[in-house]
Amino acid sequence: MLVVMEEHAAEEQIQAVIDKLVGLGFDVHRSTGALHTILGGVGDRDFEAAEFEVMPGVKEAHRIVSPYKLVHRGFRPEGSIVRVGEVAIGGEAVVVMAGPCSVETKDQIERIAALVAEAGAKVLRGGAFKPRSSPYSFQGLGEEGLRLMREAAGRNGLLVVSEVMDTTQIPLLAQYADILQVGARNMQNYALLRELGRLRKPVLLKRGPAATIEEWLLSAEYLAAGGNYDIIPCERGIRTFETYTRNTMDISAIPVVKKLSHLPVAADPSHGTGRRDKVPPMARAALAAGADALVIEVHHDPDNAWSDGAQTIGPEQFRELMGQLRMIAPAVGRSL
Amino acid sequence: MLVVMEEHAAEEQIQAVIDKLVGLGFDVHRSTGALHTILGGVGDRDFEAAEFEVMPGVKEAHRIVSPYKLVHRGFRPEGSIVRVGEVAIGGEAVVVMAGPCSVETKDQIERIAALVAEAGAKVLRGGAFKPRSSPYSFQGLGEEGLRLMREAAGRNGLLVVSEVMDTTQIPLLAQYADILQVGARNMQNYALLRELGRLRKPVLLKRGPAATIEEWLLSAEYLAAGGNYDIIPCERGIRTFETYTRNTMDISAIPVVKKLSHLPVAADPSHGTGRRDKVPPMARAALAAGADALVIEVHHDPDNAWSDGAQTIGPEQFRELMGQLRMIAPAVGRSL
Amino acid sequence: MLVVMEEHAAEEQIQAVIDKLVGLGFDVHRSTGALHTILGGVGDRDFEAAEFEVMPGVKEAHRIVSPYKLVHRGFRPEGSIVRVGEVAIGGEAVVVMAGPCSVETKDQIERIAALVAEAGAKVLRGGAFKPRSSPYSFQGLGEEGLRLMREAAGRNGLLVVSEVMDTTQIPLLAQYADILQVGARNMQNYALLRELGRLRKPVLLKRGPAATIEEWLLSAEYLAAGGNYDIIPCERGIRTFETYTRNTMDISAIPVVKKLSHLPVAADPSHGTGRRDKVPPMARAALAAGADALVIEVHHDPDNAWSDGAQTIGPEQFRELMGQLRMIAPAVGRSL
Amino acid sequence: MLVVMEEHAAEEQIQAVIDKLVGLGFDVHRSTGALHTILGGVGDRDFEAAEFEVMPGVKEAHRIVSPYKLVHRGFRPEGSIVRVGEVAIGGEAVVVMAGPCSVETKDQIERIAALVAEAGAKVLRGGAFKPRSSPYSFQGLGEEGLRLMREAAGRNGLLVVSEVMDTTQIPLLAQYADILQVGARNMQNYALLRELGRLRKPVLLKRGPAATIEEWLLSAEYLAAGGNYDIIPCERGIRTFETYTRNTMDISAIPVVKKLSHLPVAADPSHGTGRRDKVPPMARAALAAGADALVIEVHHDPDNAWSDGAQTIGPEQFRELMGQLRMIAPAVGRSL
Repeated sequence: MLVVMEEHAAEEQIQAVIDKLVGLGFDVHRSTGALHTILGGVGDRDFEAAEFEVMPGVKEAHRIVSPYKLVHRGFRPEGSIVRVGEVAIGGEAVVVMAGPCSVETKDQIERIAALVAEAGAKVLRGGAFKPRSSPYSFQGLGEEGLRLMREAAGRNGLLVVSEVMDTTQIPLLAQYADILQVGARNMQNYALLRELGRLRKPVLLKRGPAATIEEWLLSAEYLAAGGNYDIIPCERGIRTFETYTRNTMDISAIPVVKKLSHLPVAADPSHGTGRRDKVPPMARAALAAGADALVIEVHHDPDNAWSDGAQTIGPEQFRELMGQLRMIAPAVGRSL
Repeated sequence: MLVVMEEHAAEEQIQAVIDKLVGLGFDVHRSTGALHTILGGVGDRDFEAAEFEVMPGVKEAHRIVSPYKLVHRGFRPEGSIVRVGEVAIGGEAVVVMAGPCSVETKDQIERIAALVAEAGAKVLRGGAFKPRSSPYSFQGLGEEGLRLMREAAGRNGLLVVSEVMDTTQIPLLAQYADILQVGARNMQNYALLRELGRLRKPVLLKRGPAATIEEWLLSAEYLAAGGNYDIIPCERGIRTFETYTRNTMDISAIPVVKKLSHLPVAADPSHGTGRRDKVPPMARAALAAGADALVIEVHHDPDNAWSDGAQTIGPEQFRELMGQLRMIAPAVGRSL
Repeated sequence: MLVVMEEHAAEEQIQAVIDKLVGLGFDVHRSTGALHTILGGVGDRDFEAAEFEVMPGVKEAHRIVSPYKLVHRGFRPEGSIVRVGEVAIGGEAVVVMAGPCSVETKDQIERIAALVAEAGAKVLRGGAFKPRSSPYSFQGLGEEGLRLMREAAGRNGLLVVSEVMDTTQIPLLAQYADILQVGARNMQNYALLRELGRLRKPVLLKRGPAATIEEWLLSAEYLAAGGNYDIIPCERGIRTFETYTRNTMDISAIPVVKKLSHLPVAADPSHGTGRRDKVPPMARAALAAGADALVIEVHHDPDNAWSDGAQTIGPEQFRELMGQLRMIAPAVGRSL
Repeated sequence: MLVVMEEHAAEEQIQAVIDKLVGLGFDVHRSTGALHTILGGVGDRDFEAAEFEVMPGVKEAHRIVSPYKLVHRGFRPEGSIVRVGEVAIGGEAVVVMAGPCSVETKDQIERIAALVAEAGAKVLRGGAFKPRSSPYSFQGLGEEGLRLMREAAGRNGLLVVSEVMDTTQIPLLAQYADILQVGARNMQNYALLRELGRLRKPVLLKRGPAATIEEWLLSAEYLAAGGNYDIIPCERGIRTFETYTRNTMDISAIPVVKKLSHLPVAADPSHGTGRRDKVPPMARAALAAGADALVIEVHHDPDNAWSDGAQTIGPEQFRELMGQLRMIAPAVGRSL
């Protein structure tokens, strides 16, 4: 903890801060400058800087020690690879996860699984439980959807990733899916994160639309603190003042997370933009910026998808995009 | 649904939109202007405008019908009052809910309950289950905290409001609290909202830090759709680029929600600012802007609070603030 | 400057930072902790923290010394009062500046001047040069508008505040207006600020819609660095993701600026909300939060105003609002 | 203009809106639905939707006609190419503009010009007049800087782009530079835009940090309305809640502007991120998303640059980046 005192802070104000630091178990270094006295609290404690900033005579305070430890790059400087079956996320090959927003029918998921597998995807994505902002929207097929997706994936040599919305759904999801997805709106659902930390299945952790990178990594830390290190943070757009796109995809978060953390990073250009015609350029951009995996909504007939059709691309667009991605990958030392 | 076609949109593009509208059950009105053809889809359907915006030849689309119905002002033009015991939220008197961030000890909650009651608060707030961004922070006393708070409230003629974090905690919270709080990070935890919709206890619904007013009211609609109309939306700051305050408290959301919806509106200047010295000015501002209730973190010894001390005010500050609020209330036709 | 090194930073990395600090004229204090080495650069130098953050082995860097000096609260702890004629902004009385968005005709400005003066305003606001986002919108009457406003103000015992858009307009504005306004979009037009720093007339400095409080005060510092200390920062809404209001009025910026700086603070609820019905609640909120002045768009016939009618209130609303403000002022130790 | 009336709007409210529309010169189409009456105002008029939204009985209003005309894609569906000498921006080849933040010395600019030319850049960027948020920072060499840059560019077969901060600097800049840059903070300096509209030199128009895409294109419209169609909008990061990077680079704005407008689009990953190590991934991402030009800060010795060193890359990094860009370009049908 670093505490910078105001110019002309009184000696008793300085002493009060020292006392508080000592009381919290910090060793204290004091630096008296011409203008400001600086107090360095040394020790591996977790404490809110704001608690010091409201003390009389304090100008500002900064936490030094990273609030996350287990997902910090320093914990595994060489980087992590999340392995599921024969798929390695974070290795040399970039992994594409593709599929519909939601599982609709047996025929639909079979057709989509076949087409994305053929184009080179390794994981089938699809929702069986859908978080919808309106209570009146389609909420997903539930277990039946999971079963259909599992079968379609199996027939096409794909893994399955699907969203879990509540602690009570974990056993069901764990039975059918290879990777469990935590949706953006649940990124700080700590009850859910704690339970998933006890699971031994990889988690795709979507970034919340208002989450800073630090908060996102703290949510990952919840999982790791429970013993589950197989975490794939996934950038999917943040909320900004720009409304043309549904969210603003923060492409720069990809290299930032890869620097701060040892985890592999995914990107979801479908939710990141909300518009079908923006999915290919943003998928290419994410790969060029260093993403380890891409999550893309694909449907054999996007205009008639039951949900999220506006951000879903069709078979032709997907195949063309995969071709472009294969051309870009070598520029960043990857394959696809 | 209003669909505005591009200048020079082809007749088959226009026809495709008409077909889609009709297929969805809308009646269609067509308006041919010098520049743009406009298609009005009339009917009470819920549909994403984006689904039309990606169609060829479409310039823009707008949903006409409000996505929320039961919490819409038009549903109860005279406004709603949420009654709990003898307290009426949304009536002439503004209700103050005050108490510590978290229940710490029997002595602590007793002292705080006594002091806030004496100063004029009607509801005791306090957390027993705490959503913390770090897995290493204090997570609350659990049921023991609820029990202590219930007793302290009872002895001082106060009601109890406390946060529920997960569907599995609902029965416990319902047993001890008069009002259940949904935290900002759970505002779109739809599994939780759905369960609370089945409950017959009022819900204080914090606004998510990245939630638009429309999304916030849609979360309220989840509760109402389940049959629970006793909802108190609570503004607590949104996330913006400004970092001096932890959040930017959107005071204008107070009159906006009161116009769009019939629900009473609360404001939480403690979370809204994150800084103790900003709580009184923002509490006064919220009242002056028309808030029906205020939620304020108060501790008998804020410097030694176990959590959120930086945004918690002490007994003296709270009494002074209550005096100021009493002076302001008549300017907006209220009492306190 | 505080530089926190990464855990396990190499000694030569630490030395490189020390060398850079010394080269910049800082005295260096070194603190070696169990995990992190901290380097404190002591001295009154201005330097970007980012320059250190990109050095190898550096975890983070913080600037200690405020980048603004002359407008810093410490420079005049007792606070500043901007005096123009008999009006004192920052004194016990809160000052209301009211008038139309733009001067339209002699009759219009005369009627409005009379009505706002009668209701208690002390300053007539109105635009003669209008910054419009579209080149096809009404751009203001120019000098003729200034002349009409000056006359109307004189006849009603009011001062005049009007916007200056470019360095070349300063002489003209200085001739007709008592207070020159820098619009939000020009808050970082440094050529303009530098020239206004040489003027000896008060400046109303609108906050830019994306400006942090620090940047806003740095723009004020440009004025003060030129010798012009009569500065009134004016909060007028920042850009956020919420679109119901045109901007999100950051009411908390009012107490924050009053703490960080000695300058008086104004608030503009008309631009801050963009909606007529939200002007009274936000004007009340700004006063309750401690504003020294309010800037309000008033027109005798808002529905037919030539610009900004949507955010302009009429005579009746203005009189009612003034009555409410008079009731609130004593709660914050002010009069009106 | 589309005006949607509230459910149960009174007939006189509807009539008032019709009267206002007719008074403004619109033809009016009325659509009476089961719930809502919709009024379509047809005609090529510019009018703020907010003016209708505050009328009694109105639910919402939408402007149909684009507020910008001359820079609208429909005006030149085939797209525009900005030609300067032998360089074509918007053609098949992607153009790289590179150079230091500011011109420092003759030796510095000569060395940098030589190295960026050799690596494949076509335009030399560099500042002679610097907009600095602090009045105490280095403000640029002025005309001497322009002269040095012109000579260095000439010797290396490069064009020159440099920033103009004020109307009074235009003649000077026009004498030395091939492309004039409008900085982000001046994007809505309308006095400056109007003068540049009269010039016959290309303008690189940086996006303001809080500007929506529509506002950005409206600023371009100011230039076009004056007769200057040689406009290159340049994405350089918007302000969001995320603070790890100085700005959040809105990569998706690149394909959006290319769809909405016929203008070529540039991207500046140096200002877009503020961090040296993020420049290469974001440059690659911008190209992969379809940028026509890249603006990159390069210095032969970034650690000792007089300004913006933290976001400036060195010779080795630049050469490596150019190699990567050459590999990516074919994936989007371009060369470099």
